[in-house]
Amino acid sequence: MFKIALLGAGRIGQIHARNAMAHPELELCSVIDVNSIAAEALAHQTGAAVGTVDKVFDDPAIAGIIIASSTDTHLDYCLRAHAGGKAIFCEKPVDMDLARARAAAEQLRDARLFVGFNRRFDPGFAALKAHLDGGSMGVLETLQISSNDPAPPPVEYIRHSGGMLKDMTIHDFDMACWLLGEPPKEIVAWGGCLVDPAIGEQGDIDTARIMLRTASGKMCVIANSRRSGFGYDQRIEAFCSRGLVRAGNVHETVLETWDEHGKRSSPFSNFFLDRYADAYCAEIGHFADMLARRAEPAISYADGVNALAIAEAAMESLRSGNTTAVCISR
Amino acid sequence: MFKIALLGAGRIGQIHARNAMAHPELELCSVIDVNSIAAEALAHQTGAAVGTVDKVFDDPAIAGIIIASSTDTHLDYCLRAHAGGKAIFCEKPVDMDLARARAAAEQLRDARLFVGFNRRFDPGFAALKAHLDGGSMGVLETLQISSNDPAPPPVEYIRHSGGMLKDMTIHDFDMACWLLGEPPKEIVAWGGCLVDPAIGEQGDIDTARIMLRTASGKMCVIANSRRSGFGYDQRIEAFCSRGLVRAGNVHETVLETWDEHGKRSSPFSNFFLDRYADAYCAEIGHFADMLARRAEPAISYADGVNALAIAEAAMESLRSGNTTAVCISR
Amino acid sequence: MFKIALLGAGRIGQIHARNAMAHPELELCSVIDVNSIAAEALAHQTGAAVGTVDKVFDDPAIAGIIIASSTDTHLDYCLRAHAGGKAIFCEKPVDMDLARARAAAEQLRDARLFVGFNRRFDPGFAALKAHLDGGSMGVLETLQISSNDPAPPPVEYIRHSGGMLKDMTIHDFDMACWLLGEPPKEIVAWGGCLVDPAIGEQGDIDTARIMLRTASGKMCVIANSRRSGFGYDQRIEAFCSRGLVRAGNVHETVLETWDEHGKRSSPFSNFFLDRYADAYCAEIGHFADMLARRAEPAISYADGVNALAIAEAAMESLRSGNTTAVCISR
Amino acid sequence: MFKIALLGAGRIGQIHARNAMAHPELELCSVIDVNSIAAEALAHQTGAAVGTVDKVFDDPAIAGIIIASSTDTHLDYCLRAHAGGKAIFCEKPVDMDLARARAAAEQLRDARLFVGFNRRFDPGFAALKAHLDGGSMGVLETLQISSNDPAPPPVEYIRHSGGMLKDMTIHDFDMACWLLGEPPKEIVAWGGCLVDPAIGEQGDIDTARIMLRTASGKMCVIANSRRSGFGYDQRIEAFCSRGLVRAGNVHETVLETWDEHGKRSSPFSNFFLDRYADAYCAEIGHFADMLARRAEPAISYADGVNALAIAEAAMESLRSGNTTAVCISR
Repeated sequence: MFKIALLGAGRIGQIHARNAMAHPELELCSVIDVNSIAAEALAHQTGAAVGTVDKVFDDPAIAGIIIASSTDTHLDYCLRAHAGGKAIFCEKPVDMDLARARAAAEQLRDARLFVGFNRRFDPGFAALKAHLDGGSMGVLETLQISSNDPAPPPVEYIRHSGGMLKDMTIHDFDMACWLLGEPPKEIVAWGGCLVDPAIGEQGDIDTARIMLRTASGKMCVIANSRRSGFGYDQRIEAFCSRGLVRAGNVHETVLETWDEHGKRSSPFSNFFLDRYADAYCAEIGHFADMLARRAEPAISYADGVNALAIAEAAMESLRSGNTTAVCISR
Repeated sequence: MFKIALLGAGRIGQIHARNAMAHPELELCSVIDVNSIAAEALAHQTGAAVGTVDKVFDDPAIAGIIIASSTDTHLDYCLRAHAGGKAIFCEKPVDMDLARARAAAEQLRDARLFVGFNRRFDPGFAALKAHLDGGSMGVLETLQISSNDPAPPPVEYIRHSGGMLKDMTIHDFDMACWLLGEPPKEIVAWGGCLVDPAIGEQGDIDTARIMLRTASGKMCVIANSRRSGFGYDQRIEAFCSRGLVRAGNVHETVLETWDEHGKRSSPFSNFFLDRYADAYCAEIGHFADMLARRAEPAISYADGVNALAIAEAAMESLRSGNTTAVCISR
Repeated sequence: MFKIALLGAGRIGQIHARNAMAHPELELCSVIDVNSIAAEALAHQTGAAVGTVDKVFDDPAIAGIIIASSTDTHLDYCLRAHAGGKAIFCEKPVDMDLARARAAAEQLRDARLFVGFNRRFDPGFAALKAHLDGGSMGVLETLQISSNDPAPPPVEYIRHSGGMLKDMTIHDFDMACWLLGEPPKEIVAWGGCLVDPAIGEQGDIDTARIMLRTASGKMCVIANSRRSGFGYDQRIEAFCSRGLVRAGNVHETVLETWDEHGKRSSPFSNFFLDRYADAYCAEIGHFADMLARRAEPAISYADGVNALAIAEAAMESLRSGNTTAVCISR
Repeated sequence: MFKIALLGAGRIGQIHARNAMAHPELELCSVIDVNSIAAEALAHQTGAAVGTVDKVFDDPAIAGIIIASSTDTHLDYCLRAHAGGKAIFCEKPVDMDLARARAAAEQLRDARLFVGFNRRFDPGFAALKAHLDGGSMGVLETLQISSNDPAPPPVEYIRHSGGMLKDMTIHDFDMACWLLGEPPKEIVAWGGCLVDPAIGEQGDIDTARIMLRTASGKMCVIANSRRSGFGYDQRIEAFCSRGLVRAGNVHETVLETWDEHGKRSSPFSNFFLDRYADAYCAEIGHFADMLARRAEPAISYADGVNALAIAEAAMESLRSGNTTAVCISR
């Protein structure tokens, strides 16, 4: 059994806590949150103690740290956890500021640190990646990532989100790098406010179309909206030299009704915690594998920095309206 | 060009007339109907002349006869056309009375006669048959035929239909024989009036479940209703030793809408003339192939008698509620 | 927390043990199996103690019993657990012998006993039932249950299975009663050995087609094979007066590949423990609800007896080849 | 009956000839081609005479002209046919040179001229357009057009094609204008040679990703490849404020096979003449409607010029790699 601590008892922290509890090799010892009510409630549910930031990094009994606190704490906690010799599972993004994130890269080079881009652990997307790697479809040429939220978040959330490109599209940037097998060298990002003017008033966009191109000429299109109206719309198409591989949306159940208007499926999965329930569970499994030295971190700190660098280039392109170079340090 | 005559200018006769017109090798010369207005209208549309029954069978210029008149005339017209040396395309059923139909079998043994079980010419069902014959799925074990009309016909139609089993299920009996590759030796038929009591008042049923078994043990289920409520529901599943082959329903278009309730397809094809438009066209092509001696009749008079024999056995089983032997003369 | 004991540490017992462990309200205290190695291994994994049959029914600390031992013990254990005042979750079938099962019905009338017909808890089938109950599709007329195993079990299993109708089709008989909303009054069952002659040598069948009819005239077809060749094939179609509701098969993932041969989905779920993982989990949730007095047993002992009674009638019909009455005591 | 003449007896001319023959209101009188063997063969098949360009435009008996000759003749023939008072069905593109095409716009303003962008007549795309116009999905926000050929054409074809953007993508530019309901004001086009280096040696591309944006902020992505490897891939997704409408690919038949690898559909339609057979037929129907004054031209000469103008802007963007303004004269 590996003892672990959780920093952050919010929505995503609660998911990780429950999955850790159910894992036969993990023991959640300590829950920490600036909101002491939240920390105590989650500690109570999970049988863990309420801890403090000051002690957790120095506690030699704790082998792993899950960082699910607010984004502005991620980098500091990563550095302190690494200094304490812990294995780290850090939620995305690693930081909001690319320069700061880059500055820490050298220090975290050898960290046993895994960044929580959960979609890489989704069974459908993982099967797609495995199929591409298997090679039976030939060479990947182009990629289409459709990633649309069911409905826009509250404006208050938008205000502190860092903007759609760093908050939402960053997942798609990571997926693009992972599936393309090489980083993009140029990007063009178009955005607009077609869903909710209140989002525009915050200086943000709610709709984007983005093209990426790698050094070898592979192209990727990312399509984003803050509101699909039909559920959590997460689809990827990989167009290869011998055909197409795609991972489509997930339906709530297999139910169908047939009537005079045609055939109707059950609704699409509508909430990210349901849509990615299996992925969150697999993330905890991967963290246990890291702790047991059965696996190297699947998503490195450098991967986290790269996604942020692409988001910065996308923001530059959005401002200029033109194609922009992406600088990735490999 | 082969000159042909059409007996019967009703709904199905009109379809055959139009398809014959569009065929480069066929020339529709003569249209005959007891309803002279219908005959003249169709003759006008197609450039044919209005003919008479007495002359058509003796006219040496006419190579082929399409019999699409009322069922009680089919057998007599078949015999006369055969006596006149014509190739024959006769609509199903060959007759309502099994004994009469059997009595004519010897005379029609050598007829170039093709019975219009149109579903054998449907692209989906033909592809299913070809797939079974190809053998890659192994040996056929069981068959499921779902065959449901969109909505019940008028009671007046029911009254003269010969009953659902001879009017509607007879198509499925023919499909079963064709796909199973051997005739059934026993049958059990259950029926009821679940859709419209007015049908029951005519002594007919509107819903049936029927099981057939061949000498080698293959089983087939036929499911029928006079009212699906969702279109012309025509599906077949063939369960084989290496997997399943199925031909599903046809949608009007490829359109889909996705909304909060899920994914909706376009309606299913709702009218048999649309659903089987390609099949009717292929029937005329087959008739031209017969006339040009490129093909033997795909569906013989004996096939038509067999379907009728199974319908009679089904009616017997329906009355007794029990398993009944099917007598097929091969 | 409710303390529970598990009788039977085999394949299905292990599933229930793990799901009970993960449930926040259940504490698995005791594991019992005639195979002491299996009992100890499961006890070790779950933190439970190895118990004995003699003590478990009298232990006042234990609120609930899960009976997942061999079928011949089910009835005795149910009676003893009920006498001990326990809530009971008993695997199907309640017994192999209808007369014995009926004889115990009076004693178990008031038992808080729930029979593990897991398919009622499958999300797809539960959604289908809810949709029928909702009434928007009108009145149910006919039902089609397709239930085919991926591959036949070892002959040794067949030998002790009680025959396909009591071992496998019994699930479908329960589904039919549940979905039809009334018991069948007559049945006709045809079976054969089309898959594996070794099954026939045991006097069993591997393929069946069965028709059921209720007093109100609703009809149901059940299609069974011990070998689909394409996975765990579990589909239901409910044909109603305003359209059709269906629950289809479950695919392993949402992955699709498109190549020159068309579109290929990912494989169908191939193993019943995967296919019904959610259902087994929901069963444990229901057992917790029963223990907490939030729910009455969803599937009563009488339901278990009814399924057995239909299986007996099916066996009689199989022997005679004819329609057989079904006697259900309501 | 309207007498019509056909200029061009090549592959597409033959399609139009056959569809015209089958139309009850059209009589194909005259077939003209610089290749006299092709002209004679088609004339023989259709019962038409072989004509000459010099006479056809002056023949008062001819009410309509179908222009399916080589692209460099389109504009001249349009002008001459219009001068002769004919209704015109002109294949796309109207010309390869935007300046020339624009120069003729004034002269052809009142022409009864219909440009053959056949995809507007495809039942699926037409249903999509009708659905958008119906308004039940709310306001269109973004559009995704996937348009991939089965396999690249011969290099000899590429050499005279005018480049992929004018030859192939021009269809998608027209679809974008039609579905967006307003012309694009800016474009960014990326292209590459990922399929066949021989295409690159001709200075052309075989893969493109293109973004368009209208004055109101609607965005459209076009994805093109000269080789899909899985058939004629023609799909459109319209993302609206209340959900998504899509028209997917067409399969050859409804056949499915289920085996251990999952579910396989029949192949996608693989040849444009099959894929768009219904659309070509509907084009002829529309031309008959124009001749009978039942319809105004569905796709005007100005529409043809606009598609060409977008292609020119796309070529400019391809060269510069940057966002380019699109000048559409409305």
